[in-house]
Amino acid sequence: MSSKAQRIVLAARPAGEPKTSDFRLEDMAVPIPGEGQVLLRTIWLSLDPYMRGRMSEGPSYAEPVPIDGVMEGGTVAEVIASNNAHFSKGDIVLSHSGWQTHALSDGRGLRKLDPKLAPISTALGVLGMPGMTAYTGLHEIGKPKAGETLVVAAASGAVGSAVGQIARIAGARAVGIAGGAEKCRYVKEELGFDECLDHRAPDLAARLKEACPKGIDVYFENVGGKVWEAVVPRLNNFARVPVCGLIADYNSFGGDAPGPNRMPALMRAILVKRLTLRGFIVRDFAALHDAFLRDMAKWLREGKVKHREFVTEGLASAPEAFMGLLKGANFGKQLVRVGPDPT
Amino acid sequence: MSSKAQRIVLAARPAGEPKTSDFRLEDMAVPIPGEGQVLLRTIWLSLDPYMRGRMSEGPSYAEPVPIDGVMEGGTVAEVIASNNAHFSKGDIVLSHSGWQTHALSDGRGLRKLDPKLAPISTALGVLGMPGMTAYTGLHEIGKPKAGETLVVAAASGAVGSAVGQIARIAGARAVGIAGGAEKCRYVKEELGFDECLDHRAPDLAARLKEACPKGIDVYFENVGGKVWEAVVPRLNNFARVPVCGLIADYNSFGGDAPGPNRMPALMRAILVKRLTLRGFIVRDFAALHDAFLRDMAKWLREGKVKHREFVTEGLASAPEAFMGLLKGANFGKQLVRVGPDPT
Repeated sequence: MSSKAQRIVLAARPAGEPKTSDFRLEDMAVPIPGEGQVLLRTIWLSLDPYMRGRMSEGPSYAEPVPIDGVMEGGTVAEVIASNNAHFSKGDIVLSHSGWQTHALSDGRGLRKLDPKLAPISTALGVLGMPGMTAYTGLHEIGKPKAGETLVVAAASGAVGSAVGQIARIAGARAVGIAGGAEKCRYVKEELGFDECLDHRAPDLAARLKEACPKGIDVYFENVGGKVWEAVVPRLNNFARVPVCGLIADYNSFGGDAPGPNRMPALMRAILVKRLTLRGFIVRDFAALHDAFLRDMAKWLREGKVKHREFVTEGLASAPEAFMGLLKGANFGKQLVRVGPDPT
Repeated sequence: MSSKAQRIVLAARPAGEPKTSDFRLEDMAVPIPGEGQVLLRTIWLSLDPYMRGRMSEGPSYAEPVPIDGVMEGGTVAEVIASNNAHFSKGDIVLSHSGWQTHALSDGRGLRKLDPKLAPISTALGVLGMPGMTAYTGLHEIGKPKAGETLVVAAASGAVGSAVGQIARIAGARAVGIAGGAEKCRYVKEELGFDECLDHRAPDLAARLKEACPKGIDVYFENVGGKVWEAVVPRLNNFARVPVCGLIADYNSFGGDAPGPNRMPALMRAILVKRLTLRGFIVRDFAALHDAFLRDMAKWLREGKVKHREFVTEGLASAPEAFMGLLKGANFGKQLVRVGPDPT
């Protein structure tokens, strides 16, 4: 156990892309649990694109992190002291303790993990929020059917990789989009997507058309920007678009976007093709959690869903890893190892 | 019965707003029914915004009217000669014979009307396609609930007036938008909407905010343009947007719209507020036709739904009436009386 505690706070609200000076690493005393509380030691910290939204003010589905507040984030932690009858020293829990080495909790929102069932880090990835985002977005909105074509960007990432593999389990053709030849090779050869397009290569629209000769029935929207503009003209009648993220636009949210204005053409496509666009966040579908865990654990055991983790070492690495995540520098589920596994 | 027959054909594809020279009135011989055919004499012609789409080429859910082809449109007609065992001379039918005084039909797509049940013109309005568009868009997508707020534009028109009244039957607050004080008075005082805003008066966005103090849960989209831009910021979490028309944008479809680009902000709203946008056309929900007729006829009998017709006289009046419709010059369901009622 580390003898000192540390946290990373939001030092400033980023204008555009976050930069190092928007974060501040602070030492702190290891907190002391009060009555009913547990003391958690962070083992894994998850980094996810939604955190960019929490750094900015303005209306969203969640409150922003306050200036000088600890950056928010999902964690896997060990209970190292407990004044709570429901938790014992040594328990491993899924928590939401943020970017810090230690945290107190009254137990609400903690979920015990069984390290024998799956590596504990997967509770932040394929068996956690990103995997459930993929599962519920397809289950409730995308609904890929056999013979249909699904497209997903950030296809080597935590959500995108699960989306394509679940679509294939449903019998659909899965076309991924990813940044660079190495990621595309992984998506196609290791994850088994039917096709994967490099968004850094020129003329994405033409290659997308070629990769989807029967059009697109489901577009799982997690990036926005140029990919979305290339997808819209290829959507089939009655196509479904679960909207779960817009990573390409996160840094410019709130600013004016230069013209031409593409909204009228989008509205026309929605009308003429009878599209469904629906935004969601994973907690809207919390009722599906048991079904998700059952199905996803089965698919993992059967080898039908594969996943990959991208780990940086030490809490201090989180800001740079997060800035890289927003640019697609990660290759798989982005995690920070904050502390050692329990012995 | 008229001794000569006439039709209006598409003379040219409009660039922007249709103009008189895009239409041509032609004399023709009264056609002679062949085996299995009936000869129809048009009594009522319906004019509807979707017809603007049929005048242009480019992808849509229906083929465009060919140059020199008869303009498309729903009609109520009398069978004046029949070589078809299913129809007799004197039958009144709902047809889709277009902008002409006479037409042949093999009987497919015709529906007999009972003039004793309701005025036959209502089969083109409140008991026809516009009424069913309102009914199905709310039933399948908008789903207004008691205590929620619905907004609809073109609120004095055939679709909009039904939308607001159906929403009120469901217990929702109905806020209309219409052009001019007289229409707004009608929408509020005669149709019973809770509020109606004049889109010609300044600062629609601020007045919309005031009229919807609890935000907007359902926006029935039939106009697009500036109204839609004013609505988006007011939509509540989980709001539903049935997209059934974009009359404000019809004349500019296909052209580039000047910036700023509002699509990223729209996608952000979809994500953050978990909106549902879904396009539809009435025939997607044909299975609801019996339920629609049953409910709407009951509401009409009970006085819960009122409607108004806006009639111009003679086939030759159709082009000008249609151009007026696109600008909101009509006041109620736009109809052309092409021929006299049967005697």
